[in-house]
Amino acid sequence: MYKRGYNGTSMRDIAAAVEIEAASLYNHIGQKDDILKITCFELAEKFLAGIGDIASRDLNPMEKFRAAVHMHVEILCADVHASYVFLYEWKHINEQFLARFVSMRDQYEHAFKEILGAGEKQGYFQNAGNKFAVLTVLSSMNWIVQWYKPDGYMHPAEIANQLTDFILSGLLKEK
Amino acid sequence: MYKRGYNGTSMRDIAAAVEIEAASLYNHIGQKDDILKITCFELAEKFLAGIGDIASRDLNPMEKFRAAVHMHVEILCADVHASYVFLYEWKHINEQFLARFVSMRDQYEHAFKEILGAGEKQGYFQNAGNKFAVLTVLSSMNWIVQWYKPDGYMHPAEIANQLTDFILSGLLKEK
Repeated sequence: MYKRGYNGTSMRDIAAAVEIEAASLYNHIGQKDDILKITCFELAEKFLAGIGDIASRDLNPMEKFRAAVHMHVEILCADVHASYVFLYEWKHINEQFLARFVSMRDQYEHAFKEILGAGEKQGYFQNAGNKFAVLTVLSSMNWIVQWYKPDGYMHPAEIANQLTDFILSGLLKEK
Repeated sequence: MYKRGYNGTSMRDIAAAVEIEAASLYNHIGQKDDILKITCFELAEKFLAGIGDIASRDLNPMEKFRAAVHMHVEILCADVHASYVFLYEWKHINEQFLARFVSMRDQYEHAFKEILGAGEKQGYFQNAGNKFAVLTVLSSMNWIVQWYKPDGYMHPAEIANQLTDFILSGLLKEK
């Protein structure tokens, strides 16, 4: 599903990938819809649990922001193919569950926005507590699912550190 | 194709969208493959022409960078659905043309990297002239195809200005 997208993946493809009979796979897991739904909701729950935990800790907004970037990158990297489906195939979630999924995404973005907004109020950040900034920050992290490999040369913590530096300081040379 | 992805879009869908008969569309434009290919290569050529023009101008790296962000955002926004296909459906380009497309993308990334690398050498930027930085910069712009609407509240030039500020200065409050 990661390689060909939701609409390009048949139950037979999935069965081939996991080496069982398509008929048997239907019996065991149900429809292709369910696999997409399970993948997307499992990740949405992980992200929400992660940001909820950080929000509740006794940290200042800068510390919360750093922790949130690490959490986000680690969840993305833990299963990069599932993350790809979560980020780019969620639109194909069955209509009856789509609104709930979108609301979970909104909740996550909102929690990120709260951290950045609090940081702006307390003088850590500027132009940070608005939707445009939050989505730009998330997007500057999300592209890693397009290339990250568990056996590659960068570890999630290192990627998170580089992204934190970029998001906080940008490219301008310090004076 | 933007809504459902390459594999989820039939020639009949395309015909319905442009209000002509599927058979006639086949005759006129050929296969679905061709539409994907034409969309992706046309945009790749626009991006390459744009960055080539900027690279050849008598500007310092900072000015080139600013011009490149504006050029990139303007091309993305000019046809946001085509841009979505270019960014997220290119993997489905017929194998015989895929290598050429990937090499055009690489050329574009390389031209961006040259500008950022020159800017680093001349003291404008730091940690900018490497592949990770270039791809992070491009990704922080590319997400706009997911929400940009020509009749929306932000114009391409305004989006480009906000993105330039973010990429250059990040979120940290100036001391």
